[in-house]
Amino acid sequence: MEGLNNYISNNKDRFLEELFALLRIPSISSIEEHKPDMYKAAEMWVDILMKAGADKATIHETPGNPIVFGEKIIDSSLPTVLIYGHMDVMPVDPIELWDSEPFEPIIKDGKIFGRGADDDKGQSFMHAKAFEFMVATNQLPCNVKFLIEGEEEIGSINLPEFCKQNKEMLKSDVILVSDTGMIAPGVPSITTGLRGLAYWEVEVTGPNRDLHSGIFGGAVANPINALAKMIAQMTDENGHITIPEFYDDVLVVSKEERNKMAQAPYNETAYKNALDIKELSGEEGYTTNERTGIRPSFDVCGIWGGYTGEGAKTVLPSKAYAKISSRLVPNQEHNKIGELFKKHFESIAPKGTTVNVKVLHGGQGYVCPIELPEYKAAEKAYEKVFNKKPVPVRSGGSIPIISEFENILGVKSILMGFGLESDAIHSPNENYPLEQFFTGHSLFL
Amino acid sequence: MEGLNNYISNNKDRFLEELFALLRIPSISSIEEHKPDMYKAAEMWVDILMKAGADKATIHETPGNPIVFGEKIIDSSLPTVLIYGHMDVMPVDPIELWDSEPFEPIIKDGKIFGRGADDDKGQSFMHAKAFEFMVATNQLPCNVKFLIEGEEEIGSINLPEFCKQNKEMLKSDVILVSDTGMIAPGVPSITTGLRGLAYWEVEVTGPNRDLHSGIFGGAVANPINALAKMIAQMTDENGHITIPEFYDDVLVVSKEERNKMAQAPYNETAYKNALDIKELSGEEGYTTNERTGIRPSFDVCGIWGGYTGEGAKTVLPSKAYAKISSRLVPNQEHNKIGELFKKHFESIAPKGTTVNVKVLHGGQGYVCPIELPEYKAAEKAYEKVFNKKPVPVRSGGSIPIISEFENILGVKSILMGFGLESDAIHSPNENYPLEQFFTGHSLFL
Repeated sequence: MEGLNNYISNNKDRFLEELFALLRIPSISSIEEHKPDMYKAAEMWVDILMKAGADKATIHETPGNPIVFGEKIIDSSLPTVLIYGHMDVMPVDPIELWDSEPFEPIIKDGKIFGRGADDDKGQSFMHAKAFEFMVATNQLPCNVKFLIEGEEEIGSINLPEFCKQNKEMLKSDVILVSDTGMIAPGVPSITTGLRGLAYWEVEVTGPNRDLHSGIFGGAVANPINALAKMIAQMTDENGHITIPEFYDDVLVVSKEERNKMAQAPYNETAYKNALDIKELSGEEGYTTNERTGIRPSFDVCGIWGGYTGEGAKTVLPSKAYAKISSRLVPNQEHNKIGELFKKHFESIAPKGTTVNVKVLHGGQGYVCPIELPEYKAAEKAYEKVFNKKPVPVRSGGSIPIISEFENILGVKSILMGFGLESDAIHSPNENYPLEQFFTGHSLFL
Repeated sequence: MEGLNNYISNNKDRFLEELFALLRIPSISSIEEHKPDMYKAAEMWVDILMKAGADKATIHETPGNPIVFGEKIIDSSLPTVLIYGHMDVMPVDPIELWDSEPFEPIIKDGKIFGRGADDDKGQSFMHAKAFEFMVATNQLPCNVKFLIEGEEEIGSINLPEFCKQNKEMLKSDVILVSDTGMIAPGVPSITTGLRGLAYWEVEVTGPNRDLHSGIFGGAVANPINALAKMIAQMTDENGHITIPEFYDDVLVVSKEERNKMAQAPYNETAYKNALDIKELSGEEGYTTNERTGIRPSFDVCGIWGGYTGEGAKTVLPSKAYAKISSRLVPNQEHNKIGELFKKHFESIAPKGTTVNVKVLHGGQGYVCPIELPEYKAAEKAYEKVFNKKPVPVRSGGSIPIISEFENILGVKSILMGFGLESDAIHSPNENYPLEQFFTGHSLFL
């Protein structure tokens, strides 16, 4: 530990210089013209890994953006850790809201500002530097592999196929990922669960054209009224989702884990104030963290139909639409849920309307059991650095590739994130506190 | 009757020439640059009335478009009929869908084609010519007044104030209006009721910004889900509107009138086929014509909120909106209903949301009792011309000025419309069958 602290002190400026070089590359995966930048970032990662002591590090082509793979095998009989990260970043719009250039990183108020400072260049770079230290000081206790992709922000389109094609190369005992957050500064946490997702677009059709609401109103089904009735039926007065068989595969979380989760600091007043809401609402019998962490949800993400301009137009519209999504919990199969909803929603179409549901996309949830030896090991590492055990956290969000890793490679991931809520990832003025950056290094010893 | 038929035969070409001159004036009230055309139309109406035998006919200025008033008082002890019509027309877009020039009237297939041919130049012109015949042949049985306005298509903005200022001048025993339709060729009808209207815009606010549906979904009220629940509650499983006190002032229509209304030809299969719907829906216990004619309705005219672009965005939105309207029946006071809804809707806001209802506008319904002597007189006139009694029809639409006449002038209107559904009023290729045009004349004897 002391050795690492000295190493960081002696190399601090170089670490930051190397990270800044990476941050200066505008590797925005959703914008085609930045494709050359993705290759620049990939080459830089190869360089970072080789200089850190990898046996090899190479760029692999995909139909989309390149993937960097590197490794150091010290003894094939020892366990192997696969570190996953991504070198692509989100777009920078609205650019006018940035206080400094997104691709000209600076340090201000003890924080690194720049696109990718946290997500995920900053976080994945910590692993490279911890690896470098361990190689330099001959302390590497296991084999290490790095998998750095370039399409995380656009849905890891080509990564599952790459994993399928390279199972042997990617073989490992556990995957470490730093692409999530921790609860608060000084409150370490490990993300033990991610929710899955099902997403639909629904179309309700009434008459074959927009009608005069005076001439026809009262005698012809209105597709917006109908859509509202259908959406309203999808949850009952206790916040339960009413789709038949919806909860069949939901795993019940143990009392022990719920107790541990409950240790996460949570201030209801602050939570409500931050959102300007007077009351919380959700499924009866669960706390806020449980409602977003271990229970599925049902949200209409968008709705539209009829006249939406200024003033009043008296129309009985022909169509109404909604985009609807459900966050799923581990063990709920998103394709199955996708079809269950479609079947149910189409079956409850009110008289005089026809309903068409398109299943748009989905992803599996993920859970890392807190009894897993690898989880226990990570827990110990946090305890050593922070002098307290990390809180197991179920994130309400989805990282579909994590469950794909489990499906394809058969390996669990440990989500050891260091981002803070204030890091503004995906937003203007993304930043990453230096303290999180340097503390993070210590953890991967 | 025979006299009139001869008079029409002898003057047919002149009648059409005069009407065509009126139709050639592009008196579109919603387009400011056509204001001079409104004055041309007004001058032409003065000319038409004076030539027909009026004692006087003058143009009255308003803050908007001019109003023409003319009269012939033969004996102040006799009853007075006020004829209301309008000289303004709707815009002609989409112009490319017209088969002939909208302001170059032509006769084709026995129909007059041109903007205003039916609505309302053609229909109001019939009254002028019937008046001309009666004066010419010394058969005028009562005093006659003409009130021709220039703002009907933009909501008769200045007419109520004009009526208030000129009560004595406009004094009459009954108002005749030909600005509606009849059921079908050869099936005479009188519109005995119009529905009123209340119109609201509602805003539902959840959190103070759009949220990540993964991180917050399940714990924070979603304003679209909430809006759907609220709309769904506004009608019950029998199609009744659930706003407290909503039906308190609804007049029960007599069995006799419902029986007469039921004589209107109605083919459910044709009705459904025209709209491409498999089933009708509405309030239990009422027929389609009753649902649109004598019962209030509740329609969402527009709805919007959240993500409505292509593909999937997982957002728990901050806001959701809807435009909602209710068609009212006679005796329901639109201001009262406007407030009843606002109070009720705001009171049922689900936990964690705030709801704001704006009352946008409204209008009163109107009913002409079929026992009214003036209705009976009109009924007799129809019987003489068509050899059958007219069907009393309750229109689902609203003509707010008709109830304003009743409020301000204290006089009932008889809505003797000759338009057919195929006349395409407000649409390209507006037309008015010659048969309707000439039959119409006979009726006002």
